[in-house]
Amino acid sequence: MITIVKIGGNVIDNPALLSDFLDKFAQIDGPKVLIHGGGKIATELSLRLGVEPQLVDGRRITNAETIDIVTMVYAGLVNKKMVAALQARGCNAIGLSGADANIICGVQRPKEPVDFGFVADLNENSVHDDHLKQLLYDGFTPVFSAIVHDGKGNLLNCNADTIASAIAVALSKKGDTKLVYCFEKKGVLKDINDDSSVISLIKKDEFGELVSTGVVAKGMLPKLQNSFDALAKGVGSVVITQAEDVLTASGAPLACGTTLSL
Amino acid sequence: MITIVKIGGNVIDNPALLSDFLDKFAQIDGPKVLIHGGGKIATELSLRLGVEPQLVDGRRITNAETIDIVTMVYAGLVNKKMVAALQARGCNAIGLSGADANIICGVQRPKEPVDFGFVADLNENSVHDDHLKQLLYDGFTPVFSAIVHDGKGNLLNCNADTIASAIAVALSKKGDTKLVYCFEKKGVLKDINDDSSVISLIKKDEFGELVSTGVVAKGMLPKLQNSFDALAKGVGSVVITQAEDVLTASGAPLACGTTLSL
Repeated sequence: MITIVKIGGNVIDNPALLSDFLDKFAQIDGPKVLIHGGGKIATELSLRLGVEPQLVDGRRITNAETIDIVTMVYAGLVNKKMVAALQARGCNAIGLSGADANIICGVQRPKEPVDFGFVADLNENSVHDDHLKQLLYDGFTPVFSAIVHDGKGNLLNCNADTIASAIAVALSKKGDTKLVYCFEKKGVLKDINDDSSVISLIKKDEFGELVSTGVVAKGMLPKLQNSFDALAKGVGSVVITQAEDVLTASGAPLACGTTLSL
Repeated sequence: MITIVKIGGNVIDNPALLSDFLDKFAQIDGPKVLIHGGGKIATELSLRLGVEPQLVDGRRITNAETIDIVTMVYAGLVNKKMVAALQARGCNAIGLSGADANIICGVQRPKEPVDFGFVADLNENSVHDDHLKQLLYDGFTPVFSAIVHDGKGNLLNCNADTIASAIAVALSKKGDTKLVYCFEKKGVLKDINDDSSVISLIKKDEFGELVSTGVVAKGMLPKLQNSFDALAKGVGSVVITQAEDVLTASGAPLACGTTLSL
C-alpha cells in the first residue's frame, strides 16, 4: 500500500509539532508521499518585502512577484528543510515541485471572472504517475510543495489538498492507496467544541445529512467533498486526522481520526 | 558518456543568455547533469530584507538567516524556474539540492580560524552516486543548486564548482564523464584582452608555466586546480568555455573552449 499524507500550516508553523510529525512520518511502512502547504512564512516574507497580499473573496491573487515568493518559500525553504529533517531521520526523502520530473502539469486558471494570476487547476491528465512511481520504486520518499508547472515554462501555485488528492488518485490506478489529511483536530467532530466527539466513520450516503445538519461546517466541506471524490476515483481509503496521529492513521483502519468510505 | 555542466551568475543573471543556454543544454545527447550557482538574486533579496552580507577575506559568512535566504533563492526560485524552462524544452529535468535523495552530504567547515557558519566542505564520501545514477538511469536530468545537507538535519551552502567536480568524480567510477565549466570567456585566454586567444589545450605539465608567467590569473587558478584534481580522480575530460558554446563543448573533443588533460 502507498500512503499519501498532506500537512498544512498548523504543522509547518509549529516547530515542535513538525518535528514530532516527521518522527512519525519517517516510521510509516512502505512507499509514501508527503505533500505540504506553505504556512505563514510566505505571507511574512511578502510583508517584509512590501508586497501586499491581494485577496478576492478570501482567495489570494498570485501575481508575478507572489509566485516568485511562494516558489522561494514553499519549494525552497520549507521543502528543503523538511527533506533535510527527514534525511536525518533515515527517510530517503526527495523534495519536488510538480515541475520536477514533469510529475504535475497544471492548467492556469481562466482569467474570467477573476484573474487569480499564476494559479493552477488540475485535471485528469495532470499527474504523470509513471515518473512518480519510478521514484517510489527506487526507494525514494517524494515530498511535494504545492507548486506545479504548466509545461510551457511557467510555475503555478496550487492547492495542496488538491495535489494530495490528484496524486492519490493517480497512484490508485495500479495499487492500493491510503490518503491521510492532517489538520488541527483529531478528526471530523460531531460537536466542534468537544475534541472527544470524533466521528470514526463517515459513509458517502451519510455525508449529505452531516452537511444539512451543520455538523460539517464551511472549512471542512471542500475537504470532505475532495475526499469522497478521490474515493470515487479509486483511492482505497481517506483518513482525516491530526498530525500527531499520522503513524496510527497510516496503519490499521479506523484506529484514529475519521475514515471516509463510499 | 555522462556530461556534467556548471553555470554561474553570469548566465543566471542574464535572461537572454540563460534561455539560449537552456536551449542548447536541452539538446545535449545522453545522460547529463546541470549544476548552477545563485547569481545576484540572493544578494538583492538579502539587501531588501535588511540582511547585510558579512564577508571575511572576500568570502561570505552564512549565518542562520543567510542560509534561509540562499535556500529560498538557489534551491527554490532559481532551481525551479530552470526546471520549468527545461521541461518546456522537452528535457525531463528534476531539480535537487544535495539533501534530496541524500545525494550530497557535506561537512560543516571547522569554526576555526574563521567561522563561516552554514558552509559545507565536501570529501570523498560526500556524493552518494548510487542514488544519482538511479535518477540518470530513470531518464531524468538532475539540476543541482549549490545547497547540500550534513545528514543531521542542517542545510549548508557549498561552492557550485566544487559540487560539479565532486559529482563528475563520483560518476566517473563506473563510466566516462565530461565536465564542462561555463564562464564568461570563450576559454582560458593567452591574452586576457584578446577573446580570440583561447588556449585550446592545457596539459597538466604546462599548467605550472602558465601560472608562473601570469597567464592564469587569480580567479582562474582555483578553477584550473579543481579541474586537474578532477582529472586525476578519473573524470574523462574537462572543458572550460562560455555558456553559448555548451552544445559544441559537450560533443567532439577540442571543438571549442579550453580542454584540460593530464
